[in-house]
Amino acid sequence: MKIAILGYGIVGSGVAEVLKVNAAQIAKKAGESIEVKYILDLKDFSGDPMKSFFVKNFELIEGDPEVQTVVESIGGETIAYDFAKRAILAGKNVVTPNKALIAAHGAELLALAKERGVHVLFEASVGGGIPLIRPYNGAILTDELQEIAGILNGTSNYILTQMHQNGTSYAAALKSAQELGYAEADPTADVGGFDACRKLSILLSLATGKTADYTNIKTEGIERIDTADFAFAAAFGYTLKQLATAKIRKEGAEAITAPFLLKIGHPMSTVSDVYNALWAQAKTTGSVMFYGSGAGKLPTASAVVSNLVDVALGTHAAHEWTKENVKILPAAEYVTRKIVRVSCSDPAAITAKATKTLPQYPGFVAWITEPETEAQTASALKGLKVERVLRIYETT
Amino acid sequence: MKIAILGYGIVGSGVAEVLKVNAAQIAKKAGESIEVKYILDLKDFSGDPMKSFFVKNFELIEGDPEVQTVVESIGGETIAYDFAKRAILAGKNVVTPNKALIAAHGAELLALAKERGVHVLFEASVGGGIPLIRPYNGAILTDELQEIAGILNGTSNYILTQMHQNGTSYAAALKSAQELGYAEADPTADVGGFDACRKLSILLSLATGKTADYTNIKTEGIERIDTADFAFAAAFGYTLKQLATAKIRKEGAEAITAPFLLKIGHPMSTVSDVYNALWAQAKTTGSVMFYGSGAGKLPTASAVVSNLVDVALGTHAAHEWTKENVKILPAAEYVTRKIVRVSCSDPAAITAKATKTLPQYPGFVAWITEPETEAQTASALKGLKVERVLRIYETT
Repeated sequence: MKIAILGYGIVGSGVAEVLKVNAAQIAKKAGESIEVKYILDLKDFSGDPMKSFFVKNFELIEGDPEVQTVVESIGGETIAYDFAKRAILAGKNVVTPNKALIAAHGAELLALAKERGVHVLFEASVGGGIPLIRPYNGAILTDELQEIAGILNGTSNYILTQMHQNGTSYAAALKSAQELGYAEADPTADVGGFDACRKLSILLSLATGKTADYTNIKTEGIERIDTADFAFAAAFGYTLKQLATAKIRKEGAEAITAPFLLKIGHPMSTVSDVYNALWAQAKTTGSVMFYGSGAGKLPTASAVVSNLVDVALGTHAAHEWTKENVKILPAAEYVTRKIVRVSCSDPAAITAKATKTLPQYPGFVAWITEPETEAQTASALKGLKVERVLRIYETT
Repeated sequence: MKIAILGYGIVGSGVAEVLKVNAAQIAKKAGESIEVKYILDLKDFSGDPMKSFFVKNFELIEGDPEVQTVVESIGGETIAYDFAKRAILAGKNVVTPNKALIAAHGAELLALAKERGVHVLFEASVGGGIPLIRPYNGAILTDELQEIAGILNGTSNYILTQMHQNGTSYAAALKSAQELGYAEADPTADVGGFDACRKLSILLSLATGKTADYTNIKTEGIERIDTADFAFAAAFGYTLKQLATAKIRKEGAEAITAPFLLKIGHPMSTVSDVYNALWAQAKTTGSVMFYGSGAGKLPTASAVVSNLVDVALGTHAAHEWTKENVKILPAAEYVTRKIVRVSCSDPAAITAKATKTLPQYPGFVAWITEPETEAQTASALKGLKVERVLRIYETT
């Protein structure tokens, strides 16, 4: 099978590398070799061992019937969208790790692909190197999905792990993430929760068969989290993770991306550093979790390659969703228990149940609320100097 | 698609139930409804809602061309083997949760199925309800697998969890497992490690394309584990899990099923009660873990049903292995660090590095050895009253 790689960045060059490194196993599994015929990139890679494959105009790829599948690894939603669409119209399968593209244009591209008898596969778009789209779509969604919760952004998880394990400040942890290449100069998409939110929208679209518009999903980042949050969480037996979660109700989906408190001992509580995980619960299957490298050149490229093998074998997962929007319920109505921390000169004046104070944080009192909505919590806290309110993630 | 269920025990009746409960999602995913036409069981189920489907002779199913797929849920290796083989010869796909059947006769049944153009699928044979065979075979094995380690027996994991979390004795924990129906009257297959060993042999056979003969895999059970093991493990930052593990070397496989010490914080360390998990590490994918319900009527049945959907869609995983044996390296040569506990009236006399004593266990001293073989450890311990030697699981 001949393929073209669009965009020779981290993932694109990783795909070329994995196809070389694992050539034997890939040919064995796919029943044929998978070979790069073109690499499209505007930059000049004259020194690159793959240099003979480079082309600068997409028309060459578009017009070559020998190219059965294109790997879209340009990123973004503009050129990537244009090329993906044209590739499908030219009768080619599209494999992409581009969550922005799938979250924004999934319904249209999947419908177009179905019409043309080709496939759009995006295993690497959620959870990087974790093979999760396949079992999620193929097994979990054969069951009645009740809820999903994912640690879907490696950068945020690395920062929170540093803060938790080493007491590093948010600013210092972000700086080290940037130095290690985990975070970009503008880290907003990662630390603000927007990257994870798009991944959640893809999972929710797969689950419901409708488009989960990520602009309707409440998204909070980790920027305000401080080490005191971890100290008070630990005092109650919790840790803190950035989760992208959706609970499927008859009336709609309770979807939100935000920092959540997670009971220590929950399988997701040991997902640290840049690792990702997706937790899912379905009616008859029960709870499952998929864990692995959420990002990184070779893991992500490996997931892309597993889709190429699916295409070669014709054993791809069938998935599609319509442009109709999934109903996302208003986040203010979600009922959760919360850990509340207030600044208070006289702890004895706090009448809440089971309050905790920590010697290293004098003047602060924390407690766990009853299950209640944001509005109920807010009104219960009227008149207090509230330092932080953090939701507890619990399976319902 | 019409199917026949062979054996109406826990899994067989669960499959009938899941096909009913999830009928809508299944028909949507499979593109057609999946209907039970026959249920073969010698017992009488006159009161059962499915009673009209019951038959007592296999010939009826074997001779009915409308039955495209049989679910073998009889268990064991005798009748199950005979019926599975005859079903394949009659041109029917076989879906089974029967690890004993696949571990013992996988090579022959898979070859026969290939010859007849049908499929033998066994998602539920390892990890119960966890959809892991599919992504393991489809994605991880497209990469170069380096090692696997699994908590693959729910009964043993339940017993160890009780001992660890509640300080329950082995005998009491086993009794409660039997009362809860997790363990059989004769618990040997579970607590002795033989069930997990067969599951390991299936994973190793898939990985190598050869038969991993489980009789060549060193298998130790949890019968001798006591609460002191957990106390000393915790003192060094470890917990204890029954693992079925294989490391793939050029010279062969380091395969063993035994209790192992696992660093607290390792994702497998939070797999408790009857839950199962498979940890795998591959060259470019990195580390992944699949977690979920390792047993139970509905989770196991859900995995069987996901295979039925694979058959209906023709998107089943392709797998086969030959009768040729994988080389299993002699366990005595595996190099591991170990926690050693000796009974000793004078702790000061122990010259090992970083020894630990625990007030609640006077007269015992424990320490961590260097990486060494069983023989090296044994000779180093000559002359000491050795209470326990436990291997540490570490990724290499």
